[in-house]
Order: sequence, then structure tokens, then C-alpha cells
Amino acid sequence: MTTAREQQVLDRIERARRRKAHVKDEHITLCHGAGGKATQTLIEAVFLDAFDNPALAPLADGAVIADTHAFTTDSYVVTPLFFPGGDIGDLAVNGTVNDLAMCGARPVCLSAGFILEEGFPVADLRRITTSMAAAARTAGVHIVTGDTKVVQRGKADGCYITTTGLGAFHHDIRPGARMARPGDAVIVSGPVGDHGITIMLARGELDIEADTVSDTAALAGLVDDLLTACGPHLHTLRDPTRGGVATVLNEITATTQLAAVLDEDTIPVRPAVRGACELLGIDPLYVACEGRLLALVAPEATQTALSTLHAHPLGQDATVIGHLTDDPPGLVLLRTTFGGTRIVDLLVGDPLPRIC
Amino acid sequence: MTTAREQQVLDRIERARRRKAHVKDEHITLCHGAGGKATQTLIEAVFLDAFDNPALAPLADGAVIADTHAFTTDSYVVTPLFFPGGDIGDLAVNGTVNDLAMCGARPVCLSAGFILEEGFPVADLRRITTSMAAAARTAGVHIVTGDTKVVQRGKADGCYITTTGLGAFHHDIRPGARMARPGDAVIVSGPVGDHGITIMLARGELDIEADTVSDTAALAGLVDDLLTACGPHLHTLRDPTRGGVATVLNEITATTQLAAVLDEDTIPVRPAVRGACELLGIDPLYVACEGRLLALVAPEATQTALSTLHAHPLGQDATVIGHLTDDPPGLVLLRTTFGGTRIVDLLVGDPLPRIC
Repeated sequence: MTTAREQQVLDRIERARRRKAHVKDEHITLCHGAGGKATQTLIEAVFLDAFDNPALAPLADGAVIADTHAFTTDSYVVTPLFFPGGDIGDLAVNGTVNDLAMCGARPVCLSAGFILEEGFPVADLRRITTSMAAAARTAGVHIVTGDTKVVQRGKADGCYITTTGLGAFHHDIRPGARMARPGDAVIVSGPVGDHGITIMLARGELDIEADTVSDTAALAGLVDDLLTACGPHLHTLRDPTRGGVATVLNEITATTQLAAVLDEDTIPVRPAVRGACELLGIDPLYVACEGRLLALVAPEATQTALSTLHAHPLGQDATVIGHLTDDPPGLVLLRTTFGGTRIVDLLVGDPLPRIC
Repeated sequence: MTTAREQQVLDRIERARRRKAHVKDEHITLCHGAGGKATQTLIEAVFLDAFDNPALAPLADGAVIADTHAFTTDSYVVTPLFFPGGDIGDLAVNGTVNDLAMCGARPVCLSAGFILEEGFPVADLRRITTSMAAAARTAGVHIVTGDTKVVQRGKADGCYITTTGLGAFHHDIRPGARMARPGDAVIVSGPVGDHGITIMLARGELDIEADTVSDTAALAGLVDDLLTACGPHLHTLRDPTRGGVATVLNEITATTQLAAVLDEDTIPVRPAVRGACELLGIDPLYVACEGRLLALVAPEATQTALSTLHAHPLGQDATVIGHLTDDPPGLVLLRTTFGGTRIVDLLVGDPLPRIC
């Protein structure tokens, strides 16, 4: 399937990947927070090295505790704080609810830690907490504990929020990257890139007008329906946030040493998002969603998964965008609209920083 | 017991306290993060108003989940990041372990969310994660999940950390403010104010030299011993962090409508801390500890509690500093060294910002 020259390239990629993670930079850069290669290296070389333990090792969206509970945390530093379709508050609640859902768990409770900047308008804080409360209500979860710190003017961009979620398993299924199998369909629950592009445009630094809205939403109900309908045929769930679909699939193929082969033509991207991506020179496959999921499903359950997704308001545009194969191990390939095939690798950084 | 004039003052305090919490400020100030009156008002008027639910309502160090687990979160913005006796890393781990311990729970697992500043030295991050790992090991808990975000240069003072802890109850006892009873002894497990004064001096802005070291430590083992020895006679546990012993006792007396009467002479304060407090014009009762606890214990178990504390390396200087009475309701009183009695009220802000 691969020519000798292609094999040489693949071997070189493979050798590079096998190297022990090592942070070459002496200082943190924005790339380290982008969710791509630099973030992975930092996590493996610093955090995993220091905190090594069985629950942390899979580096999934959340940790599985005693096989009964899931536990996950995310810090939110999105700028601007308010954007079309949401704000840092519902983003923080939905993001943590979704990380629990991707483990196959239903949210039990959330915590919220606020770091506020001196001078931040109390009215803005109230708007954020109101939006968090509404998002929590929609997801059927309570924010049961919290903390507030204030830092001096000029720090913290108004408000940073860290949400942590505890979830409980109601099914026997523990979807995860390691469950993915050759032949699995790669399903995305809706158009990609809406959130990232919306944030980028909301900053007003670009002279682009587009009518985009963040897709931020809690996927707990959708996942519950999928787990019930597909059972153990539902192998892997991930939400393509920082780094988008491309990054999530690269993490899965790196874990499983399978390949993901995507068809560019089938990947749903709204025209306004595609247009903005073209003007910005960004591939929508790397742009964050905050209310979409990727599901890897056994072939025999693909139709069930699709019809379950289509029956839910958050999955109406769900579609199969590719499948997993044995070869070439560890890579994500894209069959382009023009008939070629290219490798979709991890980026070092992110063209869109601070979108969550 | 009280004169007519004193009663007038008490009535006025009582009326002020009964008013519905209302944030008068239009903007967040450092006071809102200080743990005193302004923080309480913000929590009640904004967070509790938005997130109202039974688990959050007690506003304790952590929330009790399904009567089997405790759940708690804290964001750390201490400056400087490194100080005599610790750093932001072990502070964040110990603080969250202690909040679980104060609920009467043993830590099950922790999460850590990092907000890093672009340009932060990777070596410093490694030093912090190493110290977190050591603190977690000492407390017998794993950091099982985490998140990293990076913000632009000039934000985040290098590193902010939010730790969240899940704990499990191994005893039937649920210590809490509401369990406190008249006659309870107020016990402190060691000298107060070491942490706050150490941080203040470590900033190097004051021309004071003192040989102080932070008391940051995990109190999970000490609490386990106390719960085993005292059983249901152990009514209330709190760690006097932001706002110190005075703030914690005010929260307890406000909840119970009991009074706490302290003897100034019995409150353990190291000479160096006392000296620095005098130079800074700060009452050590308001200065944060990060490795001390306050225990409210029924009279019949006071000796057992003391001997249990004295047998543990972290409780060797434990001492009774006062007791609870029925009257005057909701106040903390201090019998001073000079024979008088004064009210120790909540402060609006904090003379020592960003000590945790």
C-alpha cells in the first residue's frame, strides 16, 4: 500500500514519536496550552513524570475512580468572556459535563473555582454565574462547592474558572481510546469548528464578518442515549475541543496504533466557518468544538448510532466521516476532495489560542 | 451579663447581620478574595443566589455528596510561588486534603488545573509538580487528572493552581459548624499565623527580618486519629486559613448563634510571628495557617482530644484557647491579657492578600 519513499517518511515519524517526551523549551509558551504536540510533551515530561499513577496514566478526558466514578477538571481562560452563543460560565459547566460524558459517566456534582481580577464588574460575574446555573440545570447537575480568589488589576483577564466534575457510571460500558477497533466508523455529531471560529471572530481583531455561534452544549443526554442504543459496540467517545477533530483522532491512533482514514468531503463544516477558516488559513479539522462528540462505533452498530444521534436535538447533523484501519499504524489520513491522501498530524501549537 | 449600652451595640450588630446579603460594590476588590465579610457577602449574594442547592448551602470547606463522599475545591494564587517551608504546589495539595479532612473525610483522589503564564520557567513548574507529588505521597493520595492552560505574558503571575479533592467517609461522624454545642472546648492544634506572616515577609517588601516558616501540612492523619479517639464528641473541625482563627470562629458562631470566648493568653503564637504582627499592626488571630486545625470538642472529651493531638507530630503544641457559651449569641469574644473583653468581629477584607 505504501511506496518505499512513503515508508521512509513513516519510519521517521515513528522514530520521532518513540522518543521519550522531553521539554526542550526552557520557558512555557502559548503552544504548551494549545492541546497539540507541545501540550502532550509537557504533560508527559512534567506532569505524568511527577504524578505517575494508574488512574492518571491513560491521560483521558477524565480519570476512572474505583470503576464506579469518573473525575475530571478543566480550567477556562477563554477570551473574550462573552461571545455569541455563550460565555465562560456555560462553557466551563458544559466542558466538564462533557468530559464526564466522554468517560461514559453521568454528572453527579460540579465544583467551581473562580480567579477574579480586581476591578471586574460584579454585574459581569452575576451574568456568568447565572449562565453557569442555567447550564448546570440543563445538564441536571448541581454546583455544590466552590472557591473565590481575587488577584490584582491587570491579572486574570477579568475571570478564570476551573470546574471539576464527579460522575457516576450507570452503564457497564467504559468507552475509551483503547477500546477502538479496526473497522470502527468515525462519527461526528455535528458541524465542526463553530466554537473556535466564533471566539476568534468575537475578538474583533480580524476584519471578517461571519454569522457564527458557539456550539457549547452539554452532551450528557446524547451520550446516555448512545450508550443505551449501542451498548458495547460504542467503543470510544471524545469531544474535539482544543486542537479539534484532528488532535483527538491523533491521540486515539497513537494509543491504539491503528489508522484513521477520513473523507474530507464528508466532514460537516458550516459555510461561514469554512469561509473564515479559508481566510485565516486554518484547517477546520484543528478548530475546537464545545458541543460535539466523536464516536468510534463497531460497523454493526453504525446505523443505530446514527439514528440515535439524529433523534436528538444536538445530533441532528451527525455523520460518518471515516473509519479505522490497521495500517499505517498510528496515523490519521485524509482523502482530500481533490483525490489525494495526506497525513493529518498533531500540530505543535494552535493557530487559535485561548478559545476555552 | 451585658449592660444596656452593650445590649444596644449587640442589637445593632445583630440587625446588620440579619440583612439579606447584597454586594454594594460595582466592581470586585481584593477584599472580595480575602475570606472576610466582603467574601461572605459575595458568596451569598452572587454564588449561592445563582447555584442554590442543598449541598452548597452549608458553605462548609467541602460539600457532602450522598452522605458517603466529600468534595472540595480551592484555587491558589499565592505570591511568591516559593517561600520558606513550601511552595504553591504543596500548599495546593495540603489545602485540599485539609478541606476534606475538616469534613471528616479521607482523601480518595485529587485533580489539578494549572493556569500558566507564557514565559514561566519549565524548571519552576517542575519544582512545583515535584513538591505536589511529594505532598500527595505524604497525604496518601494520587493526583489522577488535570488540565493545563497558558495565558499571555503579564497574566497569571507565573502559575495559578486549582486543586479539587474527592474524599470518602470512614467514620460515622460528620463534624460541622452545626454540631457545635455550648460548653465545647475550642482547641487549636498549634501556633497560629506562621503561614501568613511567612508569605508576607517572603515578598521582601517589608524591612522586617524574621525566621518564620510556613506551617503548610496535610492534616488527614491527625484528623483520623482525632475521629477515632473522640468519636461523636468531636463536634466541629475547621482549618483557619484565609482570615485565620477569628474568621473561622465567626463563621461558626454565626451558624450556631452561640458565642466563642477566647483567652488571649492561651493562644499560641510564635515570638517571631508575634513580633512581625506587632510591627505590621495585624492581630495574629486574623492571620492564615495552612497546617493547623480548630477542633470544637465536648467537655468530656477535651483531655482525650489534647492527648491525641500531642501524640502526633503536627499537634504537639495543641492547646485549649477558649470555649463556647450560649451568650451573647453569634459573637466571638476575647478576654485580653490586660483583663478586658473585646469583640473579635469579621474583617471586611484582609491585611494580608494573596497568601494562598
